Amino acid sequence: MKKIGIVGGVGWPSTIDYYKTICALSQSYWGAQGHSKPLPIPEIAIESLNMNFTVNNRGSDEPGSWEAWDQYFQMALKLLESGGAELLIIASVTPHARLEKISQTVNIPVLSVYEAIGRHCSALGVKDLLVLGTQPTMSSPSFVEGIASFGINSFYPRTSELKAEVVRIIENLYHNRTEGAPEMIKTVVRESLSSERLANTAVCRDALGCRRHSIL
Amino acid sequence: MKKIGIVGGVGWPSTIDYYKTICALSQSYWGAQGHSKPLPIPEIAIESLNMNFTVNNRGSDEPGSWEAWDQYFQMALKLLESGGAELLIIASVTPHARLEKISQTVNIPVLSVYEAIGRHCSALGVKDLLVLGTQPTMSSPSFVEGIASFGINSFYPRTSELKAEVVRIIENLYHNRTEGAPEMIKTVVRESLSSERLANTAVCRDALGCRRHSIL
Repeated sequence: MKKIGIVGGVGWPSTIDYYKTICALSQSYWGAQGHSKPLPIPEIAIESLNMNFTVNNRGSDEPGSWEAWDQYFQMALKLLESGGAELLIIASVTPHARLEKISQTVNIPVLSVYEAIGRHCSALGVKDLLVLGTQPTMSSPSFVEGIASFGINSFYPRTSELKAEVVRIIENLYHNRTEGAPEMIKTVVRESLSSERLANTAVCRDALGCRRHSIL
Repeated sequence: MKKIGIVGGVGWPSTIDYYKTICALSQSYWGAQGHSKPLPIPEIAIESLNMNFTVNNRGSDEPGSWEAWDQYFQMALKLLESGGAELLIIASVTPHARLEKISQTVNIPVLSVYEAIGRHCSALGVKDLLVLGTQPTMSSPSFVEGIASFGINSFYPRTSELKAEVVRIIENLYHNRTEGAPEMIKTVVRESLSSERLANTAVCRDALGCRRHSIL
């Protein structure tokens, strides 16, 4: 099995989801093949970053304003590569807006969550996707453009109030607090979609590190 | 904050416990200081190993029989050190039986779980400790010797049948299966201790990556 490198910590609950899912899927796979126990898991390296630094070093439209942020992610990807990882993932949707820039300095594949979501939605026959993301995700065209090539039309909540509500939910999730989040998300979804679209639109919750893509 | 390195994967559910606990404790600490959000977490690097390899490369009393196993752990510790970690932990009790050997090749502190358990038990006034561990832990004097310097008398289940039952529980936990484990552990504890000792002995469950040290 290839060694997998994960950039994590942004936020840490999402990192756990990725790690746990890889380990459990690997054990299911080898279990189904009748492999002897303990069932193998791939070697996995994780570089977990300090989200206080990443959030406070988000750039703007100003040239060079993303430099510290970019370098922080580049360093993590580089460490994973030099530690023997053969493919890399970032356990967070938001940094994918700068994936091209931050993956320039490594020579192994960095999987894109846009591609993973695009393929997943395609397989499910999803055409329209409401994206509940962080402020940077919902302020940038990257997500929408990233999955457009899969024939999927994605969009963000309609109003700045609804976006602000999503950002509040995510800030709680960064601290592993989920109380009330499902209800708040349902409200945002209902407010964001007309009743006709509600029946035909999938929802991608960046809020949960994109771990759950639910079809309403 | 210092960067922390964790050797994980043996097994992976315990790795999640260690990572989650460090992140949550850090956020509690900074939250109590009134720090701005998102609350900081230390940078953490994890080298998660393939437990199928570690279990199948456990040595014996034969000279040199631990070589492949030792090298596998040494490589992980070394990678964490070269990636900038300033202190190291192993998210598993069992490998601590060879801690002296595997930590020889790094120049930063490797925290010992024996010391952590010893200090924790001392603080709680524990004198006697029943240790439910893996087969290698329960076959070696390392754990008992490691915490003896804290004035704690530790011992393993009385019979080989009880030890085998503990090993079965742990094998399930390696695959994140916990069904029935609490009841089985209670039975093993009752069978291992006389009714008099039952009231005065703490139980260290290596079975759960030592995450829970319960006083009965």
